[in-house]
Amino acid sequence: MDYVYGPGKSHLFVLGPVNIPEPVLRAMNRNNEDYRSPAIPAMTKTLLEDVKKIFKTTTGTPFLIPTTGTGAWESALTNTLSPGDRTVSFLIGQFSLLWIDQQQRLNFNVDVIESEWGQGANLDILAEKLAANHSHSIKAICIVHNETATGVTNNLATVRKLLGKQWMFIPVWAKQQVHEVKAITDIDFCWVHIIKNRLAVEAWGLKNCTQREEWYSDTVTAVLVPPYIDSAEIVKRAWKRYNMSLGLGLNKVAGKVFRIGHLGNLNELQLLGCLAGVEMILKDVGYPVKLASGVAAACAYLQTNIPMIPSRI
Amino acid sequence: MDYVYGPGKSHLFVLGPVNIPEPVLRAMNRNNEDYRSPAIPAMTKTLLEDVKKIFKTTTGTPFLIPTTGTGAWESALTNTLSPGDRTVSFLIGQFSLLWIDQQQRLNFNVDVIESEWGQGANLDILAEKLAANHSHSIKAICIVHNETATGVTNNLATVRKLLGKQWMFIPVWAKQQVHEVKAITDIDFCWVHIIKNRLAVEAWGLKNCTQREEWYSDTVTAVLVPPYIDSAEIVKRAWKRYNMSLGLGLNKVAGKVFRIGHLGNLNELQLLGCLAGVEMILKDVGYPVKLASGVAAACAYLQTNIPMIPSRI
Amino acid sequence: MDYVYGPGKSHLFVLGPVNIPEPVLRAMNRNNEDYRSPAIPAMTKTLLEDVKKIFKTTTGTPFLIPTTGTGAWESALTNTLSPGDRTVSFLIGQFSLLWIDQQQRLNFNVDVIESEWGQGANLDILAEKLAANHSHSIKAICIVHNETATGVTNNLATVRKLLGKQWMFIPVWAKQQVHEVKAITDIDFCWVHIIKNRLAVEAWGLKNCTQREEWYSDTVTAVLVPPYIDSAEIVKRAWKRYNMSLGLGLNKVAGKVFRIGHLGNLNELQLLGCLAGVEMILKDVGYPVKLASGVAAACAYLQTNIPMIPSRI
Amino acid sequence: MDYVYGPGKSHLFVLGPVNIPEPVLRAMNRNNEDYRSPAIPAMTKTLLEDVKKIFKTTTGTPFLIPTTGTGAWESALTNTLSPGDRTVSFLIGQFSLLWIDQQQRLNFNVDVIESEWGQGANLDILAEKLAANHSHSIKAICIVHNETATGVTNNLATVRKLLGKQWMFIPVWAKQQVHEVKAITDIDFCWVHIIKNRLAVEAWGLKNCTQREEWYSDTVTAVLVPPYIDSAEIVKRAWKRYNMSLGLGLNKVAGKVFRIGHLGNLNELQLLGCLAGVEMILKDVGYPVKLASGVAAACAYLQTNIPMIPSRI
Repeated sequence: MDYVYGPGKSHLFVLGPVNIPEPVLRAMNRNNEDYRSPAIPAMTKTLLEDVKKIFKTTTGTPFLIPTTGTGAWESALTNTLSPGDRTVSFLIGQFSLLWIDQQQRLNFNVDVIESEWGQGANLDILAEKLAANHSHSIKAICIVHNETATGVTNNLATVRKLLGKQWMFIPVWAKQQVHEVKAITDIDFCWVHIIKNRLAVEAWGLKNCTQREEWYSDTVTAVLVPPYIDSAEIVKRAWKRYNMSLGLGLNKVAGKVFRIGHLGNLNELQLLGCLAGVEMILKDVGYPVKLASGVAAACAYLQTNIPMIPSRI
Repeated sequence: MDYVYGPGKSHLFVLGPVNIPEPVLRAMNRNNEDYRSPAIPAMTKTLLEDVKKIFKTTTGTPFLIPTTGTGAWESALTNTLSPGDRTVSFLIGQFSLLWIDQQQRLNFNVDVIESEWGQGANLDILAEKLAANHSHSIKAICIVHNETATGVTNNLATVRKLLGKQWMFIPVWAKQQVHEVKAITDIDFCWVHIIKNRLAVEAWGLKNCTQREEWYSDTVTAVLVPPYIDSAEIVKRAWKRYNMSLGLGLNKVAGKVFRIGHLGNLNELQLLGCLAGVEMILKDVGYPVKLASGVAAACAYLQTNIPMIPSRI
Repeated sequence: MDYVYGPGKSHLFVLGPVNIPEPVLRAMNRNNEDYRSPAIPAMTKTLLEDVKKIFKTTTGTPFLIPTTGTGAWESALTNTLSPGDRTVSFLIGQFSLLWIDQQQRLNFNVDVIESEWGQGANLDILAEKLAANHSHSIKAICIVHNETATGVTNNLATVRKLLGKQWMFIPVWAKQQVHEVKAITDIDFCWVHIIKNRLAVEAWGLKNCTQREEWYSDTVTAVLVPPYIDSAEIVKRAWKRYNMSLGLGLNKVAGKVFRIGHLGNLNELQLLGCLAGVEMILKDVGYPVKLASGVAAACAYLQTNIPMIPSRI
Repeated sequence: MDYVYGPGKSHLFVLGPVNIPEPVLRAMNRNNEDYRSPAIPAMTKTLLEDVKKIFKTTTGTPFLIPTTGTGAWESALTNTLSPGDRTVSFLIGQFSLLWIDQQQRLNFNVDVIESEWGQGANLDILAEKLAANHSHSIKAICIVHNETATGVTNNLATVRKLLGKQWMFIPVWAKQQVHEVKAITDIDFCWVHIIKNRLAVEAWGLKNCTQREEWYSDTVTAVLVPPYIDSAEIVKRAWKRYNMSLGLGLNKVAGKVFRIGHLGNLNELQLLGCLAGVEMILKDVGYPVKLASGVAAACAYLQTNIPMIPSRI
C-alpha cells in the first residue's frame, strides 16, 4: 500500500508541507459534500472569521484563493497594479527571485534591491529610494516576509515605518508566517523550539546561512555545510536511512545548505529526535561532529524553559 | 462539529463531487508527506499508468494538471492552437456555453453550431462544414462529451468518422465520462443504474430534458418539471427535509430542470432511496405524482437484471 | 483489501452492530493512548455523565462493564442474588431463553412465565404471582425489555406498577433501548421510521411476528414469511445480490422470520432503499409481492410526517 | 475535543498499548459490519493464518479469545487442568505474581519458585523439581515469557530442554513477545533499538532493574532510580511537561523503577527523542545526569548499525 514504506513514524521537517494536528486530519476524513449546498458558505464564513484570528486582525479582509502561492502572487499584483508600474522588490533568495521573475514577466518596471543570499532585505537602500520618491513613481514594495531558502525573516514593521506618510501597496509573501503566529497564539512554546536550533548548529561547529540574528526565521534553520560536503547527500540519507525529510538547498545555495523546518504541529521531543538524526547523518557524510552535541545544547536550554502543558497542570 | 448537521447518511446525487469509495477515503487519511521526496514521483508514475486503464488506452499519454476543469480547457487550447485559429464548437448547454465563451476570450475564431438545450451536437452541420473545409481552415473541433446541464452525451466515434482523412485537433471535455468508464470496467452494474432512471421519470409522468435516447447520459438524468413548479424548490427541499443533494437547473433551464447524478461509488438500493425521496419531494411541491411509481418501475427492471455480487457468489 | 467487496455503500439493517455516525467514527480514528494516564479517567468520567442523559436519569449510576452482554447478565445476577434465590423470568424469544438458561446454570430457582414467541411478557400471570408473594420469596423479576428475536417490547412501567410496595430487584436487558432513547432525544425523527415499517409489511400482505401493536418494538420489525419460503434465503440473497445485511430468524422462528433492524444512525431515504430491496428479494424467492408497494405505503406516511431538519430551516 | 490536549505528537513509550502503524489504523476506520455475514469468517480465517507467521509456526493452532489477558490465563488453565493439580510457577515480578494468585484462587496446587525481582526464572530449581518428579505429579509449568515489570525475558528453549522426555503442559504468557517477533520478521531493525537503551542507562550512571544481560527484554527497559528519587514523579513529569507516556514501577518496585517500552511501530529517531526527554526529566527531578549523554551513547551505536530502509535503497 505504501509505495516506499518506512518503519515507524516518518519525521517531517521540511518547510511545507507541515505536520497536521490529528484532530484536523480526522476532521478532513469525510465523504465529499455538495459544494453548492448552503452548508458550504455557512462553513466558509466561519473559516474566514477564524483566519482573522491567525493574522491578529479584526479589520483586515481575508480571501481564499484556489490556486498555488505563485498564483496568489500573480493575482495580488495584477489586481492592484498596471503593466509598466514601478515596483521595488528585494532579491535575497530563491523565493524572492521567483517573485521578481514573475513581476518582470508581467511587465512591471521592477526596481530590484539585491543582497547576498543569507542577508535580509536592505532597508537602507529602500529608505534612500523612498526619500527620492518625489514623483511618487513607486507604486508598490514587494517583500517576502520569510525567505525560507536562506532562513531570513524581514522586518515588516520597519518597512511600514520607513514609508512615513507615503502611500503605496505592500504585497507580502508570508506563507510560513501563519504557522508561527498560530503556534505562538495557542501554545506559547514555539519560540522555545527555535532558539535551540541555533544552539545546536553552533554546537556542531557549523554556520547558519542566515547571517545576522535579527533575521533569524522562526520556522526554518538553514545550515551551511563545509565545502567538502554536498548538502543534497545529507537530505538523501535522512530519507533513506532515518525516515526523515529535510529541506534541500536551492539555486545559489544548492549543495551548500540543508534546511530544518520547525513549523506546524510539532513538539520538543520530536525536534530533539530530528537533531539527533541530523548529527548521525553529518557523521555519515564525513563531518566530524560530536554526536549528541547539538541535542545537549538544545536540552540544556529546553530543560530550563519548557512550560508545563497548561491542560495537564 | 458539523455546521449544518443532518441525521443519518447524507445522500449525494449531484454531478460532482461524487461519492468516494471508503477504501479510497481511508487511503487519503494520512499526514502530509514531503512532496519533494523520491516517494512522490514513484507514486505518481503508478497513478499515470492506472489512469490509462480508466480511459482504456495503452498508447495515450495522460497528464495531471493541477487546476480546475476550466484551467484544463484553457491549457489544452492555448498549448495547441494560436489566436485567430478557427475552431468548431457546439453550443448545447451550460458547460459547452462556458467553454465557447473561453474560446472567444482567448481570441480564437469560433464557429459555433448551436442546438436547442436538450439536444446533442448537430453532427449533420459538422459534416457539411467538414465537407467544405477545402482550405483546411478548421484547426480544431471542440466538443463536450457529456453535457451535464441537460443530460446529453455526444457520440465521439461519429465525430471521428466524419473527419475521414482530415487531420485536426479534437479537445474533448469529458469529466464525468471517467466515472462511467471506471464503473463499467470494474463492476458491470452501472448500465443497470441508468436505464431505470428513465423508467422512473416516465412513471412520474415527466419528461427528460434530454430529447432523444441516443443522447442519454450514463451519469446524469435531467428532469423537466411542469411550468407551475420551480425546480430550484425541489433541490432546496431535498436538502432541507430529506438530507439529499440534487443538481440544480442551470442558465436557460434554471427553474425548469432538476438533475439526478448517478455516478461515483453507488449501488442500486442507494439509488432507489433517492428515487423514493424525489417522489416525496415532487408531492411536497405540488406535483401529483403517484408515490413509489418510479421506484416500482425501477425495481421491476432491477429485480430482473441485477447480477450477483461476483465476490459473494 | 476488502475480503468480500461489494459496490457502493453496504446497507446495514441488522439488530446490531449498528450504523455509526461519521463524527463518532472519526473520533475513534486515533493512535492508542496510555490508559494509565490521567487523561483516561478524565474522559471516562465525562462519558459516565453522558450515559445518564441517554437513560434520562439524574440519580441513576451507570457502569462500564468490559464484557459481552452475556457477561453483563451474569454480573448483574451474581452480584445481587444468591444461588437458590427465586427469580421470575419471562420466556418470549431467543434472548430471554438464553438468559433463563444462564439463570438456571447459575443455580437460581427460576420461575418461568412462558408465552408464545411473538407475544410480550404475560403480565397477568406476573400480577398473580406477586399477589401470592406473601412470603417474599420472589427476589427478582428478570425481564428483557426489547426481545429482538420477535420484535417485542415489554412495558416496564406496568411491571413497576404491579409491584406496588413490594421491593425487589428488576434486572432489565435493554441493549437496543439505548439506541431509541438517543434517537428520540436528539432528533425527533425516529418514531417516523418505525411506524412506516408496519405499513410496509401490511402492504406486502405479510404478517409481523409481533402479535399486538402494544408490543411493537421501535428498533426491529420481525416479518413472518409464508411456509413455502425459507427466510434464511432472503437474508442470504440480500447480502449476495443487494449488498444489504438483514437479521435472520432465530431458534423457534428460524426460517420463518427475517428481521429489519431500524436503529443507530439512519434516516428515511436509507430505510426506503432497504424496503425497496426487501421487495425485490421477496420477488426473487417466489413471493408474489407487488414491487414498491411497501415503499409507497411508507412514503405516503413519511411525506406527511417528516419534519424539516432543524439545523437547515 | 481532546480532553487533555498536548501539543505535537504524543510520545507513547509504555508496555502497551503500543504505537499502531498508520496503515493498520486506517484499515480500522470503517463502519460496523454485520458480524453474522459470510465476510467475517472469511476474514477471520485469513487472520488466523497470519497469526501463525507472527509466531513462526506452521503446525500450531492459534485461537482468538475475546477477553483480557487475565481471561486468557484463566481460560488456558481451566481448560487443561483440574482443581488440585500441581503446577510449577515462577514468581519474578508483578505479572507472574498476579498469575500465581489466579492459579491459587482456581484451587491448583501451586509450587512457587520465587526469585528476587529483577532476576529471571530460577531454572536450576526447576531442574531439581523435574528430576524428582517420579510420580509425575507436576501437571504444568506456568511461565511468563517477558516479565515487563522488571524487564526480564525467560529462556523458553531451556525450559523445554529440561523437560527431556517428560510430558506436561506449558502455558506461556507472552503478550509483548508478539511485538518483537513481528518487528524482527519484517524489518530487521528492532534489535538495534534495544541494545542502545542499555547503553543509555549506563551513560546516565543508572542501573537496569534486570540483573543479567541474558534476561534483557527486547521490549522494555526497566531503570532503577536512586533512593532519593520517586520514579512515579518521573512518569508524571514526562506526561505533564513533555507529552510523553512512560511505564510506572509496579508493586515491589513502585517508586524505584520507571520503564521505557520499546515495541510496536517505532523507529530510531522516535526513540532518541524519548531518551532526550528522559534525560531532561531526570534533571528535573534532581538526578545529576549529563544531558544528552544517553543520546550520545545510543547515536554512537546506531550511526554504525542502522541499515538503509530496504524499500528506499
